[in-house]
Amino acid sequence: MLDVALLGTGGMMPLPNRFLTSLLCRYKGRLFLIDCGEGTQVTLKILGWGFKNIDLICFTHFHADHISGLPGMLLSIGNSGRTEKLTIIGPIGLKRVFDGLMTIAPELPFIVDLIEIEDDFEKIFQFDDLFVSAVKANHMIACFSYSINVRRKGRFNIEKAQKLNIPKKFWSVLQKEREVFFEGSIYTSEMVLGDERKGIKVCYCTDTRPFPNLIPFIENSDLFVCEGMYGENEKIDKAIEHKHIIFSEAANVAACANVKELWLTHFSPALTEPECFSDFVKSIFPNTIIGYDRMNKSILFEN
Amino acid sequence: MLDVALLGTGGMMPLPNRFLTSLLCRYKGRLFLIDCGEGTQVTLKILGWGFKNIDLICFTHFHADHISGLPGMLLSIGNSGRTEKLTIIGPIGLKRVFDGLMTIAPELPFIVDLIEIEDDFEKIFQFDDLFVSAVKANHMIACFSYSINVRRKGRFNIEKAQKLNIPKKFWSVLQKEREVFFEGSIYTSEMVLGDERKGIKVCYCTDTRPFPNLIPFIENSDLFVCEGMYGENEKIDKAIEHKHIIFSEAANVAACANVKELWLTHFSPALTEPECFSDFVKSIFPNTIIGYDRMNKSILFEN
Repeated sequence: MLDVALLGTGGMMPLPNRFLTSLLCRYKGRLFLIDCGEGTQVTLKILGWGFKNIDLICFTHFHADHISGLPGMLLSIGNSGRTEKLTIIGPIGLKRVFDGLMTIAPELPFIVDLIEIEDDFEKIFQFDDLFVSAVKANHMIACFSYSINVRRKGRFNIEKAQKLNIPKKFWSVLQKEREVFFEGSIYTSEMVLGDERKGIKVCYCTDTRPFPNLIPFIENSDLFVCEGMYGENEKIDKAIEHKHIIFSEAANVAACANVKELWLTHFSPALTEPECFSDFVKSIFPNTIIGYDRMNKSILFEN
Repeated sequence: MLDVALLGTGGMMPLPNRFLTSLLCRYKGRLFLIDCGEGTQVTLKILGWGFKNIDLICFTHFHADHISGLPGMLLSIGNSGRTEKLTIIGPIGLKRVFDGLMTIAPELPFIVDLIEIEDDFEKIFQFDDLFVSAVKANHMIACFSYSINVRRKGRFNIEKAQKLNIPKKFWSVLQKEREVFFEGSIYTSEMVLGDERKGIKVCYCTDTRPFPNLIPFIENSDLFVCEGMYGENEKIDKAIEHKHIIFSEAANVAACANVKELWLTHFSPALTEPECFSDFVKSIFPNTIIGYDRMNKSILFEN
């Protein structure tokens, strides 16, 4: 199971009733955050999933509305008692931007591991069966879209295990994909596990024009969180100029990529009632939800 | 008249129902801000005084809860259409911190003038009859308290003007403290204005232990905005350790300095109901108000 929460849905600037766009995922008690604009720590506080277990923060890019909340967030994570290493991933320049922002928070009680990415990167981060991948997007400055993936191992085949005379006490070890050495024999999980089953895939794409690699990157995802900067098709020129995606484009991409569900977010401050475009966008991709702050769901493995 | 608004009342971290401590003053349509933590632009948006006319931002010190909102604030000021120069004042290190934070907002449509102060500074900034002064405080890092002062000229003396045969058309010019050259004579405002009258004085003091210069600095002010990190006297050791002021100390200082009104602010996140200490603190200084977000008033000249 993967829990996902859209911490905010605003683009450009935080508003009194709308935090900046950011996505939080929770897997086996650990937290993975994408983007952290001004106020993200406040909406996280309201959500109540805690600060201490944030192991990873990914940044799409370094425009202020996606990263200005970092110093406060790291200080609050520090205040929560965290002492374990935290990983931050972002485009080239991350070290420079991090050093700049941290002039106002120079001391943290944990180590920060910075990973700069220059190009598409599969499995850039891994925890247990969860891994994160990145794909280069197309914005005014270097920008990446991310996917959070949870692998699902094959089913344990009892018949095979019995046939191989593997003692029962080792079954759970093999289920965890570890090897067992016993009385001169080596037993591997491949011997007893079936084919890998369909896992969970959540993608997050904001501040970009649609780009060629986007559809293969998000293909068949369970949830596609995508920016919808403007609701009206008439604003396409503005979207092209500032390199953003409009509602209908996000819906078209979702349909082409065969995703299960689309959440729209990163609304322009001028777009005060994005839900007015709900029928319109559902006419292109029916399973679209107009995002709202702290909207969340638990995504389960399929049976 | 000087309008003052306490934009937030929190210390350390922004909370769902409490923005970080910051004070906004408005004089003749211009805005002067002290401190700008994460979310200050949002509470300002709720207050509704606008962004475009912010001419000055003063920083007490560079802990994140007092400055982390700067990049977003400057971008929002830029989006408001401002093109005039904006002045920022802060302790030594301001340029380094500013450059660090602005890695995420490298382009602004206006010039920023940075003024670093090392020691007490009278009239460090002036607009019309308003001036700002600073005094060195006593915190973990370099820190200043500020006063916003509005001078009030003397009353225009009609009899004197008539006696000097100054034509009526020059009276308003002389009232504005400008000189008039007319038919070989020089007329100055001193000739027709009485003694300077009592103006308006608002002081802002946070993140410090009480320090020797504090009382003379805030003496006779109309409003003293002071941190009250903890309500309980028992927390004095903690206040001393982290160099903060507790409620009773702020009230004592207010009483000693003969201020008219005390607003408490910068409450510890653990102090969820600061108003519970209202009676206690009023027993020391009766005209104390426990601050709340966007509390504001207009301070008028005395008759």
